[in-house]
Amino acid sequence: MNTNDILIIDCLQYVNWNRELFKEAKRGGLNVIHVTIAYWENRKEVIQNIDNWNKHFTEHADLIMPIRSAEDIQVAQDNNKIGIIFGFQNCSPVEDDVRLIEEMHHLGARIMQLSYNNQSLLATGCYEERDSGITRFGKVAIKEMNRLGMIIDMSHSAEHSTLQAIEISTRPIAITHANPTTFHAALRNKSNDVLKNLSQSKGMLGVSLYPFHLAKGSDCTLEEFCNMIYDTAEFMGIDRIGIGSDLCLNWDYTVLEWMRSGRWALTPDFGEGNAEQPTWPKQPDWFKNNLGFQNLIDGLQAVSFSDQDIEKIMGKNWLNFFLSSFPPMPNKDS
Amino acid sequence: MNTNDILIIDCLQYVNWNRELFKEAKRGGLNVIHVTIAYWENRKEVIQNIDNWNKHFTEHADLIMPIRSAEDIQVAQDNNKIGIIFGFQNCSPVEDDVRLIEEMHHLGARIMQLSYNNQSLLATGCYEERDSGITRFGKVAIKEMNRLGMIIDMSHSAEHSTLQAIEISTRPIAITHANPTTFHAALRNKSNDVLKNLSQSKGMLGVSLYPFHLAKGSDCTLEEFCNMIYDTAEFMGIDRIGIGSDLCLNWDYTVLEWMRSGRWALTPDFGEGNAEQPTWPKQPDWFKNNLGFQNLIDGLQAVSFSDQDIEKIMGKNWLNFFLSSFPPMPNKDS
Repeated sequence: MNTNDILIIDCLQYVNWNRELFKEAKRGGLNVIHVTIAYWENRKEVIQNIDNWNKHFTEHADLIMPIRSAEDIQVAQDNNKIGIIFGFQNCSPVEDDVRLIEEMHHLGARIMQLSYNNQSLLATGCYEERDSGITRFGKVAIKEMNRLGMIIDMSHSAEHSTLQAIEISTRPIAITHANPTTFHAALRNKSNDVLKNLSQSKGMLGVSLYPFHLAKGSDCTLEEFCNMIYDTAEFMGIDRIGIGSDLCLNWDYTVLEWMRSGRWALTPDFGEGNAEQPTWPKQPDWFKNNLGFQNLIDGLQAVSFSDQDIEKIMGKNWLNFFLSSFPPMPNKDS
Repeated sequence: MNTNDILIIDCLQYVNWNRELFKEAKRGGLNVIHVTIAYWENRKEVIQNIDNWNKHFTEHADLIMPIRSAEDIQVAQDNNKIGIIFGFQNCSPVEDDVRLIEEMHHLGARIMQLSYNNQSLLATGCYEERDSGITRFGKVAIKEMNRLGMIIDMSHSAEHSTLQAIEISTRPIAITHANPTTFHAALRNKSNDVLKNLSQSKGMLGVSLYPFHLAKGSDCTLEEFCNMIYDTAEFMGIDRIGIGSDLCLNWDYTVLEWMRSGRWALTPDFGEGNAEQPTWPKQPDWFKNNLGFQNLIDGLQAVSFSDQDIEKIMGKNWLNFFLSSFPPMPNKDS
């Protein structure tokens, strides 16, 4: 099975994009990429990032196009372009104002994490000691995201907050990029309790290829990774799994520092790394960039997934999830 | 004993000030007032509020002056002016940036609450269901406030966050306006556990005259209120208590709506009130405005406080607390 034969959706990348990298992603067979446009950015800063993306859409109109509805994914495929979905890894662009959720939706944001590692105004992050769960503002925000059709993403959130988001949200939520803690016990990975509740509520897990989320880190083998997918599919159901590679490309260390320390730390926070090895981790040899998706398909075949299941994991499950998640909620009065 | 004979410090008021109200406060014998200049205001908005205060300082220079150090309090007394201390009831002016704490200190802020009813980026508020305690950012912020000499105020914070702030802060903290829950069981009042830890760490409690913090609300008698002060002084020690009247004057209901709902609620939140009686509560007859301090002194005398103790409660304790709290921490290298 070839990357060009099937729909490939990567539900998280953070890349310093340029024409060469868009072309590489096209060669790699990508159809849709959920791109991160905020870690700690406030409203003004994220609008600047969106302006930069709009420039990309103009300059590279032959390669990429924005996805604002699930139907746009078909348009992108028909036109042989990569569809780009805007997502926030934090609720920082919304600042303290629930009405900014709708503004951000108008500007194209379709996925938002409620917290990024730290406590946010909406939920607790996975690196905090204690977890206050979904806050008063968080409950209002979830309702608003449900109404608009903005996907709630709990990838970097803490356990109780995540369980509560699943419970409170009237629409299924996503963990766009993380792995089970049974595969690798990292604060960023997810317990069986979370994965069970996620799957029972028809939510989605995107499995991550970021080395800190992998057993043996950069040395994790393709077979080990695909076996993890197999086990997780057994546990959650084959329809609940997709790819959220967390592929980070072409950034220098200052960007990683921003991701880790934002404006809240006075001395560097090393996040998943440490003072001895502060910089970007090395990707596994079999997934260095957007050309690695063929290896993933081959690896999934090798652990005896059917072609049909591979299609689901590589893109169809995310497509179905977007088809039900992106439409706004019908008006109660209509 | 007369209000004019002793130092009177009110460690929280929120008043829509004008010349008449400054004059009334002077007639009432006030020497120092900690005024609220932020509930949900962000950096830009709080700077606007400070600009408005600077206008007050110019226009009413015969009545008021800013307090930037505890020594300024003596200057204010010598010049027969009311000293004004800027305080934030929330960390919203600091946004997500620890360096804004120093900026706000430069602009005159000397007291900051870590959270206002809701979860903030630093700590949990008293109306949240669960309490994540002092967050990762909160720990950095406390260190920075300790360094600069900005008082940590936990009046509207949740229990565990408050206990943790007392523990983490290397300098005593304040609860500028609240009463014991043993007097009136409101979410905004404080448990004996909090009051014990506050007092053992040489922190300060300002007792509140806001009706929602009072037993029997607006009908609370002067005697009941002064008996509460007596019991609290027994429990915490006479040096640990002052006044934080929470006197709110001359605002319409839209301001109360802002205080309660900020920008986070889509439907009104009624805070300490309720949908049936949403508006400002009626002050007790014996404390309607800044002329009520003489009644307080009389009431304290009636429950048999000594003159010396009354002086402490009415102002000296806050003065001593400010004298040790406002100076910056000595540089470690010097």
